[in-house]
Amino acid sequence: MRTKPEQLINSPLSWLADSGPDDDIALSTRIRLARNFRATPFPIAGNQEALLQVRDLALDAIRESDAMLEPMEFDLPALNDVEKQLLLERRLISREMLNPNQASCLIADKDESLAAMINEEDHLRIQALSPGFQLNPVWNRINQFDDALSRRIPYAFDVHLGFLTSCPSNLGTGMRASVMLHLPGLAMSGQIAAVKQATGKLGLAIRGFYGEGSENFGNLYQISNQSTLGESEKQIIDRLSSIVTQIIIHEKKSRNFLFENKQSYLLNHVGRAYGILRHGYMISSEEALNSLSALRLGVDMGMFSSVDIHTVNELFINVQPSHLQLRAGKELSSEERDTERATLIRETLKAKRGR
Amino acid sequence: MRTKPEQLINSPLSWLADSGPDDDIALSTRIRLARNFRATPFPIAGNQEALLQVRDLALDAIRESDAMLEPMEFDLPALNDVEKQLLLERRLISREMLNPNQASCLIADKDESLAAMINEEDHLRIQALSPGFQLNPVWNRINQFDDALSRRIPYAFDVHLGFLTSCPSNLGTGMRASVMLHLPGLAMSGQIAAVKQATGKLGLAIRGFYGEGSENFGNLYQISNQSTLGESEKQIIDRLSSIVTQIIIHEKKSRNFLFENKQSYLLNHVGRAYGILRHGYMISSEEALNSLSALRLGVDMGMFSSVDIHTVNELFINVQPSHLQLRAGKELSSEERDTERATLIRETLKAKRGR
Repeated sequence: MRTKPEQLINSPLSWLADSGPDDDIALSTRIRLARNFRATPFPIAGNQEALLQVRDLALDAIRESDAMLEPMEFDLPALNDVEKQLLLERRLISREMLNPNQASCLIADKDESLAAMINEEDHLRIQALSPGFQLNPVWNRINQFDDALSRRIPYAFDVHLGFLTSCPSNLGTGMRASVMLHLPGLAMSGQIAAVKQATGKLGLAIRGFYGEGSENFGNLYQISNQSTLGESEKQIIDRLSSIVTQIIIHEKKSRNFLFENKQSYLLNHVGRAYGILRHGYMISSEEALNSLSALRLGVDMGMFSSVDIHTVNELFINVQPSHLQLRAGKELSSEERDTERATLIRETLKAKRGR
Repeated sequence: MRTKPEQLINSPLSWLADSGPDDDIALSTRIRLARNFRATPFPIAGNQEALLQVRDLALDAIRESDAMLEPMEFDLPALNDVEKQLLLERRLISREMLNPNQASCLIADKDESLAAMINEEDHLRIQALSPGFQLNPVWNRINQFDDALSRRIPYAFDVHLGFLTSCPSNLGTGMRASVMLHLPGLAMSGQIAAVKQATGKLGLAIRGFYGEGSENFGNLYQISNQSTLGESEKQIIDRLSSIVTQIIIHEKKSRNFLFENKQSYLLNHVGRAYGILRHGYMISSEEALNSLSALRLGVDMGMFSSVDIHTVNELFINVQPSHLQLRAGKELSSEERDTERATLIRETLKAKRGR
């Protein structure tokens, strides 16, 4: 069964559309594990026959595990650029998978909360995503999935090095855990640089959600562990968890400070952003993300009865270029995307208003 | 009977709130006449006794004429700066009257469509104002009022020079006729400079509604005759009328061109302006006037079912500094005015939306 990527654009992402702990600040929690098949060349070695075998074995193991209720499969080499970009925009594949090999594929559960990339840099990368800040539940879920697969797949594992991976930076646990945070309060009060410095010193990475060169767009930041070796999964998660907890406390304080001391500035900032989102007819990606950030803050501050943060969360995904193009059913110029983006936002907010 | 200026802030200006010919482009038509008492020194001579006598005679004559249904009288030297500024913002007095002499006063009809300044630069300046573009009806009205006064007041008149005035630039008819035009189409298509040049060559003046240094605010322009001598009132009005008619035709063409060829630009321009007016919490005078201009254009283009141009017209007056301060009941800093201005606009547009 093959799924067409455009089928996804109207289906809500459970990890953004549902409620979760601390979701006023934490949009989602994600953990991915890198795994490889024992005694099989890594995908980079380019042994097509071996990789096709890996793909079939991995797909069988995943299907048999019953971890996914309604699995969707995507044959990556068969997709065009816009379709692959859509999967990237939905966090279902990595940037590397924009140039897949002939045996690359993606399998994901219908609600997109569980997914596996096959034949990326590693034979297998599995991920679980949940709304809000909930590292332990997500860990339990991905761990169970991993256990089920390990009963069917002979993993490459070394007693000293742990799980063997294509890139040494993933050796050991093969785990990357991250929490996506919305930090407009810290951004407005100029504290992001300090937060970055502190998290860096503690061995964590903090980067913009939309990747290189878009660090500040939407005030969305992803905080993740840097190292995978020398600590247990539990230790990594505990450290990440305690730092994210601190950042959330700081962000709340910043929001409260702004609300108490700069209320008209805040109201004006949020109100204008909503005005432009609700009534504009052309909007660039950067302005859209920053305005959505202001709107999300306003929703949390109780300024809007008709909009909820999950609507804003989904717009953060849906305003991206490939989402707009697949929705329109054709390639769009940058200017046409600005118009489509404004239309999507306007109509989404208008529909909410009407309720 | 003395009226307090703050009583005016909640009463609609008939010459902006009512409908009139071509009011999609012409906001209002105004004619004022300068008159002086025969054998009496001009106000500049500063003979207080003579000026007080002029004031009492003029007030009596105006009351007896029955031209005003509900006359309101304002003793200018008794008013504070904000109150005088309010009368200026409502076009009831001239800038000179911000520094009145002891015998200066204003009498105006309740709906502010007819008014007389006493002891400004001339002993008497009477004006009539109507919505839209209607020079002849306004002329008939002010002419009748003038006739009625001339039966009670001995006017200074010379067979060769016509009506004698304090400043030679008003000699002859003593008339200044003007039409206030909203020209966003010509402004957006960069044709205002050409219009200014052409009207100047034809002996007319074109200036920004909000005075020196604010020429472009709100895209509101006042077109008036420059000379008062050597032509009859009818000739002056006919010339002004034919040029205003031409400008209105050009403005309509420009709007249609934009609507047909730059629709998304136009929709975006108008939509964003409405968004900021409807949802902002701080707005400067300049941004408010320019956004109101865009909104007024949008209303004319049929983009809004809930807002009418008369609401926008009134906001053009009500967002001015003294209106905001008298509404708030206290002096306001520039920043406080920006907040009050945004609140007034937001609530006005919200009330309209609710209907």
